[in-house]
Amino acid sequence: MLDFNFANPTHILFGKGKIAEIKNKIPAKSRVLITYGGGSVKKNGTLDEVLASLSDHTVFEFSGIEPNPTYETLMKAVEMVHTNSIDFLLAVGGGSVIDGTKFIAAAAVFDGEPWDILVQHGAGVRKALPFGSVLTLPATGSEMNSGAVVTRKSLQAKLAFLSPFVFPVFSVLDPEKTYTLPPRQISNGVVDAFVHIVEQYLTYPVNGKVQDRFAEGLLLTLIEEGPKALETPQDYEVRSNLMWVATLALNGLIGAGVPQDWATHMIGHEITARYGLDHAQTLAVILPSVLTVCKEHKREKLLQYAERVWGIKEGDREQRMNAAIDKTRDFFEQMQVKTRLSDYGIGKDSIPLLLEQLQAHGMIALGEHQDITPDVSKKILEYSL
Amino acid sequence: MLDFNFANPTHILFGKGKIAEIKNKIPAKSRVLITYGGGSVKKNGTLDEVLASLSDHTVFEFSGIEPNPTYETLMKAVEMVHTNSIDFLLAVGGGSVIDGTKFIAAAAVFDGEPWDILVQHGAGVRKALPFGSVLTLPATGSEMNSGAVVTRKSLQAKLAFLSPFVFPVFSVLDPEKTYTLPPRQISNGVVDAFVHIVEQYLTYPVNGKVQDRFAEGLLLTLIEEGPKALETPQDYEVRSNLMWVATLALNGLIGAGVPQDWATHMIGHEITARYGLDHAQTLAVILPSVLTVCKEHKREKLLQYAERVWGIKEGDREQRMNAAIDKTRDFFEQMQVKTRLSDYGIGKDSIPLLLEQLQAHGMIALGEHQDITPDVSKKILEYSL
Repeated sequence: MLDFNFANPTHILFGKGKIAEIKNKIPAKSRVLITYGGGSVKKNGTLDEVLASLSDHTVFEFSGIEPNPTYETLMKAVEMVHTNSIDFLLAVGGGSVIDGTKFIAAAAVFDGEPWDILVQHGAGVRKALPFGSVLTLPATGSEMNSGAVVTRKSLQAKLAFLSPFVFPVFSVLDPEKTYTLPPRQISNGVVDAFVHIVEQYLTYPVNGKVQDRFAEGLLLTLIEEGPKALETPQDYEVRSNLMWVATLALNGLIGAGVPQDWATHMIGHEITARYGLDHAQTLAVILPSVLTVCKEHKREKLLQYAERVWGIKEGDREQRMNAAIDKTRDFFEQMQVKTRLSDYGIGKDSIPLLLEQLQAHGMIALGEHQDITPDVSKKILEYSL
Repeated sequence: MLDFNFANPTHILFGKGKIAEIKNKIPAKSRVLITYGGGSVKKNGTLDEVLASLSDHTVFEFSGIEPNPTYETLMKAVEMVHTNSIDFLLAVGGGSVIDGTKFIAAAAVFDGEPWDILVQHGAGVRKALPFGSVLTLPATGSEMNSGAVVTRKSLQAKLAFLSPFVFPVFSVLDPEKTYTLPPRQISNGVVDAFVHIVEQYLTYPVNGKVQDRFAEGLLLTLIEEGPKALETPQDYEVRSNLMWVATLALNGLIGAGVPQDWATHMIGHEITARYGLDHAQTLAVILPSVLTVCKEHKREKLLQYAERVWGIKEGDREQRMNAAIDKTRDFFEQMQVKTRLSDYGIGKDSIPLLLEQLQAHGMIALGEHQDITPDVSKKILEYSL
């Protein structure tokens, strides 16, 4: 096992009706800015439930945080924080709203040009406003981690930052709040969580036995519950398991003490930035290609994955590895997420453009061995057509 | 899945040489009381390493915290805290030292009679001194939870308390620090961690799929690594996995959202209080009896345990359940921990005395269904002879 430091202070409030408890989690005299997206939380009653819980608090609202939240929009919220002396933020939505709120929390008290938070990937963050979240979409894990991804439209750049100051103080996970999600968001959420787990698991063995078992347990649960979430949207048990898996997939625990990859995410971010695909769509396209192109480096873990996650025991090593990659692709397709660039109308002329972007953003040595150079990324993209 | 609230703020510093980092984790102007046990940390160099890291801090020492730490001893440390204006504690040792330090941390600033902390099981605790730990014995999970057990010799009482104020601020887990442990302590630690997991897993199904997979992953790892820890004491990988399993076995995660049992611990505590057996010895005796006597209530989870943890697929339900219980007992024996009261020279005349103690401490409705009445405890004890 590799050495590690691990800490995660976020309080999780899990279950039906837990929104009622948030009034006890936000200091009574706070001036609270509630942040949300396109308004679905307004239509489905979640926002009303939040406002009811905070009826004794001073509350403001900021709406319009988009999927792949933009710097341009978030800076308007930062201005609103300053104008109204806001001292607590509450994100109500999915990963994009929570990610955006993390950026607002850090940028509002940042000593310097806020864009540098992203350029420096969080290194310069020394403080942030406290914030909580009410999660409505199980997917990104943002509700229990300290990372966020923000897009600057004007630069076609999608950059991530990490800082221990942007852990949510609390997050409410009420599985019922996911009942009204469109199927596409459930599909995307399952794929996103699946790929988060794989990026921390399918590297090379370091004898992290617990991390491996936990990752496998999360993957098995997604494989069991994901399709059911599409078939029977109002199954509380299915949604509960999905929600808890997505949170644990990226809260730091399964990645502590093991190598991590993240090449799929980095290449995928460029596809979203350039062509506007959903984040999970890019992952479903890129992951099978990364596993194929990097098969030899990942051999031992791929064989373990084949056996423990997919029950593949027949065939020689090559056959078992290929079968596991095929099963992975089939699972994404079963979840209604297409796995080829061509499925999204993107052809091979995209490749030089995407490689240019990867280079412009310094993504020239990806993967657990930092050996996914632009040449290897090119192969991965060619394999994804 | 059941509703739950979960939070665990403890920072884990895991790996070789991590003791060097504690100087950054304790405020520079703190007056630190280092607490430890019988002196093994002095002999094996761990204490020197701690003192070296804290060479710029003001440091005091309190030694002599015994296995099953006593109220009588801990109150002497509380006095030392007051006399020397201590404002940070650092436990160096195993679960007993850390448990004892939690009590010192709470009692030193408790408004009232400190014994009430235990009588009220922590309900009255409103604050505590901050403290960290350097773990030398993987077993109890105390290094990453908010519970402690303290014995009052004069009353032959062993009581537990829980409070969110007594999470360690940080805990150092350096697997090399376990190399010099006597085999008996490794054996006990593996059994203790195993039973912690089982008490949160082998109840009745609530469809907590992640919790089940995590618990099974921890059990499988203990079964694989436990015997190796006795055979090859200086195997870093084995000790790493053992250490991380024992911490995760009782840090709140696998128990969040599922029923819990704890009858084995409660009955076991009375045996330790009366006859002085090691904590893990009592668990190894009582757990197989609890599983046998409560077999029907635990049927579904016992069958799942049989299949996923022990690979038992042959035979009818009764046979598979019995085989799983036998495997459990065999594992404890393989770990050199005896599983019958008679192995420790305790006969059936002990039963009325132990039942009397259980009743005196209010332990009259144990187990996940609160239906382990004194009559059922009697059966469990008879089965343990």
